[in-house]
This record gives sequence, C-alpha cells and structure tokens, in this order.
Amino acid sequence: MWSKGPVDLRTYLRTKKAVVDGALETHFPEANGPSSDLINAMEYSLLAGGKRLRPILCMAGAEAVGGNETHVLPVACALELIHTYSLIHDDLPSMDDDDLRRGKPTCHKVFGEAIALLAGDGLLTEAFRLMTTPELSDHVPPHVILKTITLISEAAGYRGMVGGQVVDIQSEGKTLDLSVVEFMHNHKTGALISASVASGAILGGGDESQIKAIISYGRKTGLAFQISDDILDIEGDSATMGKESGSDEKKGKITYPAVIGINRAKEVQSELVEASIECLRVFDHKAEPLRQIARYIVERKK
Amino acid sequence: MWSKGPVDLRTYLRTKKAVVDGALETHFPEANGPSSDLINAMEYSLLAGGKRLRPILCMAGAEAVGGNETHVLPVACALELIHTYSLIHDDLPSMDDDDLRRGKPTCHKVFGEAIALLAGDGLLTEAFRLMTTPELSDHVPPHVILKTITLISEAAGYRGMVGGQVVDIQSEGKTLDLSVVEFMHNHKTGALISASVASGAILGGGDESQIKAIISYGRKTGLAFQISDDILDIEGDSATMGKESGSDEKKGKITYPAVIGINRAKEVQSELVEASIECLRVFDHKAEPLRQIARYIVERKK
Repeated sequence: MWSKGPVDLRTYLRTKKAVVDGALETHFPEANGPSSDLINAMEYSLLAGGKRLRPILCMAGAEAVGGNETHVLPVACALELIHTYSLIHDDLPSMDDDDLRRGKPTCHKVFGEAIALLAGDGLLTEAFRLMTTPELSDHVPPHVILKTITLISEAAGYRGMVGGQVVDIQSEGKTLDLSVVEFMHNHKTGALISASVASGAILGGGDESQIKAIISYGRKTGLAFQISDDILDIEGDSATMGKESGSDEKKGKITYPAVIGINRAKEVQSELVEASIECLRVFDHKAEPLRQIARYIVERKK
Repeated sequence: MWSKGPVDLRTYLRTKKAVVDGALETHFPEANGPSSDLINAMEYSLLAGGKRLRPILCMAGAEAVGGNETHVLPVACALELIHTYSLIHDDLPSMDDDDLRRGKPTCHKVFGEAIALLAGDGLLTEAFRLMTTPELSDHVPPHVILKTITLISEAAGYRGMVGGQVVDIQSEGKTLDLSVVEFMHNHKTGALISASVASGAILGGGDESQIKAIISYGRKTGLAFQISDDILDIEGDSATMGKESGSDEKKGKITYPAVIGINRAKEVQSELVEASIECLRVFDHKAEPLRQIARYIVERKK
C-alpha cells in the first residue's frame, strides 16, 4: 500500500516492477510436451524486460481510489500480456518488420513467423483467462470484473489499439493532418494505457466520478506517452533504448514531431502532462504515484 | 425453444444459422473513419458463409439443460468470431498459405497480410467484449459468465486451439504417431467445439453433472468432427467444400487417415459419435438436437 509522505518514484517503480516480473515469470507452466515452443516463445517476449508501465498504472489506479493493489495483480499482468502480444505482431515482417526489440532479437527472428504469430494469439487469449482467475474473483465482485473486461477488450480491440494499428500501417509514407495522427496515437497507445489505470480504479472500488477522472488522466497521459515515444525516436540514444533511433523517419512513419515540429510536440506533451495531473485534483496523496508517473513519462530516456 | 417431437435437423440447423447470421451481420458498426478497412476485413471473413457449427452447438447446449437459447446468443456469436480469427491467421502466408476459404479468396488475398493479421486480432478481442455485453448479463449471473470466459479462453488459447495449431504447423512433413495426431486434433479443433456446447450448458443453468456429461459429449464430437474433416479432404468434392480436395496430403499434413488408414479412421469416427451420444443418456428429448448433430458430423459433405 502507498503510505503518506514524499514519493520516491524510482523506488516505487522498481518495487512494483519486481512484483509484476515475479508474477509473470511464474505464470506459465514448464515448457514440455508437443506445444513447448509456443510457451517458450510467449515467455521469451513476455520476459524480455519491459518497463511494465501498464501493470504499474493499473496498480497505481487501484491505490489512488484506496483499493488494494495486490488484488488487481492478475489484471495488471493481463495488460502486460496484451501489450506484449501487440509488440510481437507489430514486429512481424508483414507489419513493421523489426529485427530488434528491447535490444534483443524479435520473437519471429528467434522462433520463426508462424510461432511468433501464434505466441501473440496465445498471449492475447491468456490475458482474458487471467482476468477471470479466482485470485481476482476472490477479492472483487464478478460484475465489477465483467465491467473491467468490457473496458479492456474495447481498448485493445478494433475500437482501440487494433484500430490505431491499422491507421499506423496505412499511414506509412503518407502526409497526414494532425487529427489523424491524434486518432492513431489515441487508439494505438492511449486506449490501453487509459484502460490500464481505469481498470485499476474500477477493480479497486472507485466511484463513478473517480473513475471518470482517472479515465481522463489516462487518456492525456497515454497521448503524452506516445508523443514522448516519437520524440525519443528522434533524440534518444540507441543503446539506452535497445533499438535504433530515427527508425520512424526511415520507415516514413507519421509522428507528432513530423506533423507539428519537435518543439511544438514537446509543448503539447508538457500541456498534456499538466492537464492529466489536473484531472487528479479530487484525489488525495494516494494518487501521488499517478501524478509522478505522468511527469516521469516526459522525462524518461527510454 | 426446442419442442418435444421428432427432430428435423435440417430445419433446426437452418433456423439456428439464420439467427446467428442475423446477429453477426448487424454486429459491427458501418465501416467509415480511419480504420474502416479493418471493419471491412473482419466482416468479410465473418460473413463468408460458415456452417455456424460452434454457435449452434452453444445454443443446443443451452437447450439441452432447459435454458433459453436466445439468451446465450452473444456467446454463440463470440465463438464464431474466435473460429473466424483462427481461420484468418491459419490462412496467412507464414502459416498454411491458403488462397481460398469457403470458395472465396482468403482475407489476406483481399486486404493484404497486415490488415488480415489485425482483423484476426480484432475478432479475437471483440469476442471477449461480446461475452460481457449487457444482452448476456441481463439474463445470466455474472459469476456464471466469468466461468464461461475461463472455459472459452482456455479452450481457445495455448492450452487448447493455439497449442494444437503449433503442433499442426510443426508436424508438416513429419511422421507422427497416433498420440500426437490425437493431441493435435483434440487441441486444434476439439477444444473449442467442446467449449462451445459446454458454455451453452453452463450459461443455460446446467448442474455440475450435466455440464460434465456435455463436456464429454463435446470432446468426442469435436474429435469426430476433425477426423471427418480429414476424410472429407481426401474423399470430398472440391466444389461442394469450396476448397481443393487433397490439400492436406499435398502440404504433408498429418491426419488421422494418414496415420491409421482411411477405413480405420472411419471406424474411429463412428465409435466416437456413438460414444458421444451415450454421454447424453442422462438428458431427455431436449438434447435430441445434440444427438442428431453428432450423427450429422460424420454424414456431412462439407
């Protein structure tokens, strides 16, 4: 639980990440039997060292409304499974055709395209199984869990992440206006980030007005996060990020800086962070991690 | 509702298919906006004319335990979305590389590989959203819905369909023993077919012993269905099936007839159908459609 007092965000993020990593590392059974390559491929990508931002946001969302962050761990992990599946499919040759992810060969480079495709499918499906685990339903009423599954499936599906991904793929090499870039970012990245923090608030027992405020926070933070990704792709250090910088431009990807310039993109990003923190004004100190995570998003180096 | 009296299976299947088709045709919003190609691709494959066996089994499972088959329609449709996603991904160049499905060009031939991949992802995700729709939760208690989501996600994921798919891909051109072929069929096809009828029985309010019997029925019927698919691939008429016959052999696919011979495969299939009907002995006339569907599976021509 989050205790009153000054927040050391580094410690907070490290502690939460350790909890999530621990749960993810022990999630799948030992890989043996006919489909062992599938389990190895799912684990390879899942345990390749992400920031675990979405699970941490889910837990921080639960804490902000006074809920128990340990109880929401299955959904926090499910969000990371969904995020990982989307990365595996994004990296496939028919999509972004990337060889490196987080400094390691991408799933299809190691296991081949067919197994990578199926590993993504397996992670997405398993995410929904995780949301129905007794470890969650022992603590949270079933109708609240159903509400969360609705939220996450909408955010991850054609109305959200998958819809944004289509626009991303189709936008390569085109000149687009800001509204389409915003649609793409809000759907491709913002929707799942917003659903992560909102699902924590719902499962943690937040009331309607709290959930509404958290969803607004999530949308703005999610968009700021994607803009910072765009900026990092231009200004970031390849070694720190584990992937080549400048790859968006090479691929003809449409980004915020490409459309409005890097200086204006940085301004928009800062405005979004301030506005997202403003959404949390109704919350007390328990929302302090969320406030700091919003600031961290624009200050991070990878 | 199923009424007492002789069952005309043709009428039963046609009526149920019409209900499912009607729901699927109106499910997605009109395709406009930036991600319209995605909606078009999902609908293209979803409405390409399947038998709707899984949705019909779900509704028949509900009827068998005295439940209302209309109430389970969202889950029945969700099962067809999952089945359709699996076909789209199966047909991709990195998997089976098929150009035709149900007599029409496959999704990636029409929309390209990237959109087809994302259409599959979108359908799978939307399936889980459908399972949480108020149209279902207005009639079924939330803890029962959660139980169904667990069942379906296990059957569709790495423990089930996706796991079987990996073995299928890896088995091409190899000599395998019967136990691996059985593992593959039970997982790739049997698991979701079994979950279809079982989810109907659970949502329809079946008790534990009824659900157990229905699950046994589903497992045997599902395996019989896959064996009949293997046999149809050898003996079927290409025009009736909407795909080339003999394609399994050409691809070096491992099938039941390839391992134990076509005559023994037919015997096993008949034994499975009889055993699956035997599982239903505790049920009254309301399970008559399930009994007839089991027989239909070995007699069908496509």
